[in-house]
Amino acid sequence: PDAGALAAATARNADLTKPPQALGRLEDAAIWYAGWRGTDRPVIDAPQVVIFAGNHGVAARGVSAFPADVTAQMVANFKAGGAAVNQLARTFGARLDVHPLQLDRPTADFTTAPAMTEDELCAAICAGWQAVDSGADLLVTGEMGIGNTTSAAAVAASLFGGAAEGWTGRGTGLDDAALQRKAEVVAEGLARHPQAAGAGLEALRCLGGRELGAMAGAILRARQLSIPVILDGFICCAAAAALEAERPGALDHAIAGHMSAEAAHGRLLGALGKTPLLDLDMRLGEGSGAALAIGVLKGAVNCLSGMATFAEAGVSGA
Amino acid sequence: PDAGALAAATARNADLTKPPQALGRLEDAAIWYAGWRGTDRPVIDAPQVVIFAGNHGVAARGVSAFPADVTAQMVANFKAGGAAVNQLARTFGARLDVHPLQLDRPTADFTTAPAMTEDELCAAICAGWQAVDSGADLLVTGEMGIGNTTSAAAVAASLFGGAAEGWTGRGTGLDDAALQRKAEVVAEGLARHPQAAGAGLEALRCLGGRELGAMAGAILRARQLSIPVILDGFICCAAAAALEAERPGALDHAIAGHMSAEAAHGRLLGALGKTPLLDLDMRLGEGSGAALAIGVLKGAVNCLSGMATFAEAGVSGA
Repeated sequence: PDAGALAAATARNADLTKPPQALGRLEDAAIWYAGWRGTDRPVIDAPQVVIFAGNHGVAARGVSAFPADVTAQMVANFKAGGAAVNQLARTFGARLDVHPLQLDRPTADFTTAPAMTEDELCAAICAGWQAVDSGADLLVTGEMGIGNTTSAAAVAASLFGGAAEGWTGRGTGLDDAALQRKAEVVAEGLARHPQAAGAGLEALRCLGGRELGAMAGAILRARQLSIPVILDGFICCAAAAALEAERPGALDHAIAGHMSAEAAHGRLLGALGKTPLLDLDMRLGEGSGAALAIGVLKGAVNCLSGMATFAEAGVSGA
Repeated sequence: PDAGALAAATARNADLTKPPQALGRLEDAAIWYAGWRGTDRPVIDAPQVVIFAGNHGVAARGVSAFPADVTAQMVANFKAGGAAVNQLARTFGARLDVHPLQLDRPTADFTTAPAMTEDELCAAICAGWQAVDSGADLLVTGEMGIGNTTSAAAVAASLFGGAAEGWTGRGTGLDDAALQRKAEVVAEGLARHPQAAGAGLEALRCLGGRELGAMAGAILRARQLSIPVILDGFICCAAAAALEAERPGALDHAIAGHMSAEAAHGRLLGALGKTPLLDLDMRLGEGSGAALAIGVLKGAVNCLSGMATFAEAGVSGA
């Protein structure tokens, strides 16, 4: 971030017509955003939501309540404007782009082989890198991929350690027996790829998927372009965590949009040191929680940039 | 609410392209809104934020960190577009109206007399009633009034019982000694008006203020017009609580926008049976927390009304 802009935004915030800290977390979020944008009076005019879709070999192990065909069907739904994230992006004036990543070539089942080769992971990261609009002033990365909460649980467990059950949740809505099978599949993956433990991108390669790699690539590219990022739920944060594992501080340009109802998301946010803006029991993915948080961040930034100071308004201080 | 619209919205929500309950509280909020608007595909096109301002005799007791002149100064700031709520209303496309209520005639100091006569309370309620745009499709009521967290604490304590300290918070930012004096002032008010205990509008008359009466009037009028309401923080909810005390269910057309950092707001929301949409440590008043929640509710309603069903999108179910 730009230290001068951070200082100027902090000073401006202290002069605005409100008691100190009365806008609570909005003040912190707006100052953070100002720092990354290099101005004490930023605006959010061109938010971008980008969705990556991928298929997962591990889906054949019965880890989702939905068939794998749904990934491609939902891509068509995104393109036609019919999904939740389309409505949310429209509500907050965000551009929405959808990138299906070789849906006819699922990753390898990570219980038997690395999910991706090095070339495949590089291609996924590159797809994410290239998907970011350099003119965007805010980025949300979302995903679609039947089976990808299983991949995300395996990546998170590999990066942060602990038992598979502690990172495995119900995804699209598994019952107790299916949840237990899913945790066993995650545990098999962890046992199969011990070299991935704590290893950042290697965990993403062995246990992740194309859409996870692409989200990581997009978040990296946003950092290079000084575009702040709103992280979505469990899968997005698992992909982002691989960057943080590679270099602590890699997610300083990212804020947590919401707390997902997917069981381990709170634990993952805690490990990343992020406090979410929203907590509404959402667990849809698609970037939907982060897209909703665009509205909160817009409100925060508009207060910082648009409010009058005590002197401008002729209001007496405390 | 319209039972047919509620049933139709519930059925529509179940067919949308997402796992069941994956949008969490957005689904409940959208269905609630649909019921009050009488359609299963509502839109929020004309939200109204209305701010009432009043002055308080009890301010002379030193219960605020700011001088009483600030009420009128902030009204000018609202009219000039410089306050936080102006930026938030603009962010979410809401109309903003400001109604100063006899600022040159503060209410009586409630430790010595009822804050208002019956005529004065009626005039305040009437001002609120008349301020609601009959063409609005969503209402936020906000307030400005130096000293009004003291009034709100007294009203809440009178309605729900318990010690004054348990309902008294730091308002615009009191230190420990000032907070204790403020609680003593609230306790004096409660002792002075025992007939107000649990007595709804009588509590508002004896211990409230013009802007609290006006908010209650506006919320009543919104009910008559089937306009859903987003409640703001502690002061708004104390005014609304007087309606609930008069008739349980009187706030069924209202949702809690946010959890304020003002200490007793959580207790007040609990007494009203409301769970807030947002929790961002805000404590500004002005309707600011509820105005921010307009964005969340818009997102929720747009999902219900704009998403494709599984059949429309050709997506396989679970």
